[in-house]
Amino acid sequence: MRLRRDPRATEYLAQDERVVQEPTAYKGKWHTLFGNDNPIHVEFGCGKGGFITELARRNPDINYVAAERAETVVYKACKKANREETPDNLVFVFEDMAKCLDIFEAGEIDRLYLNFSDPWPKKRHAKKRLTYRDFLKKYAIILGEQGEIHFKTDNKGLFASSIEEFSLEGWLMKNVTLDLHNSDMEDNIMTEYEKKFSEMGFTINRLEAVPPKK
Amino acid sequence: MRLRRDPRATEYLAQDERVVQEPTAYKGKWHTLFGNDNPIHVEFGCGKGGFITELARRNPDINYVAAERAETVVYKACKKANREETPDNLVFVFEDMAKCLDIFEAGEIDRLYLNFSDPWPKKRHAKKRLTYRDFLKKYAIILGEQGEIHFKTDNKGLFASSIEEFSLEGWLMKNVTLDLHNSDMEDNIMTEYEKKFSEMGFTINRLEAVPPKK
Repeated sequence: MRLRRDPRATEYLAQDERVVQEPTAYKGKWHTLFGNDNPIHVEFGCGKGGFITELARRNPDINYVAAERAETVVYKACKKANREETPDNLVFVFEDMAKCLDIFEAGEIDRLYLNFSDPWPKKRHAKKRLTYRDFLKKYAIILGEQGEIHFKTDNKGLFASSIEEFSLEGWLMKNVTLDLHNSDMEDNIMTEYEKKFSEMGFTINRLEAVPPKK
Repeated sequence: MRLRRDPRATEYLAQDERVVQEPTAYKGKWHTLFGNDNPIHVEFGCGKGGFITELARRNPDINYVAAERAETVVYKACKKANREETPDNLVFVFEDMAKCLDIFEAGEIDRLYLNFSDPWPKKRHAKKRLTYRDFLKKYAIILGEQGEIHFKTDNKGLFASSIEEFSLEGWLMKNVTLDLHNSDMEDNIMTEYEKKFSEMGFTINRLEAVPPKK
């Protein structure tokens, strides 16, 4: 998603209470930020935030961290969550998740959502894909014992290469579908992107992946 | 593929030299049948045989076993291979590959092709799919050290469940594509089914899988 830079974003993000100003300061202490011991679910690349904001509303007993490295995007997502009176079990982090090991302690998160991540279709950019082996190694660290990745994309190339990467790294894939909207899954929440591209006739691929036993 | 039963099939299959009459008698001895030590590649469910017959022509230094459990289908495939003067590195087996452990010795085959296998879409029929875990356990036995499965299908449900099964059984998946005909693969040989269904607009899914280390 490309948005023109909004000059109000920097100031908003620096002041809004829903934005975690120094996420590295919460490494190992995210439960203190939320003030409870509920599970922590994160989305890396939350885009406009519709998906995780809806999850936060539906599941008051789960804490949500929405991470996004594009400033104008996270600004709009956060502003929308505030406007729609989202409960405070949702916070935003404006940061690149290549740094996720500096932000989350080993085993600190319970679920990681990757939705319509940048496909980086060229082979020479494979390492930038959020399901590339180097990222999966990091996710395997920060996910707890019962941790899972829930991943969906319309991009066939990204889905195929992700299967290779999960397989290479020894993750267990389950609940795989190449056509999410005609599958058994009943509680799917569509992202803004997903709505648009499925209306254009693209099928959505989805899988869940469990990291290798430690 | 459903064909009306052809009454000439039984007699033809009982007499033709390209048909292996007692495949269980060759367990551990397939190299003696071919009279050389070339690698052995098999196709389980060869259908009309166009795929493996073309492979046999292109690769005289590989031995091919085409297995099919539908009598009229293997009859037509064999008759076609004979009519087109296929070299004798291709033989046919009229048998159900649920019995593959009675036919092939551990490590005896080098590659297994599964092309457009019956998808058995109902959950209660999952065990009949040729990529179900019970089959994969057998394939892991009969495939040698460098052995691989090459699997393709247009069926999204079968491909998705196969990924789950390969993952569950610890196979390494590689060269995965959800759109074979727009992928890097240059030497794809289309099956009769593949030609027909890709012309109808269906995309073809493909992957290669390496069994877990013994």
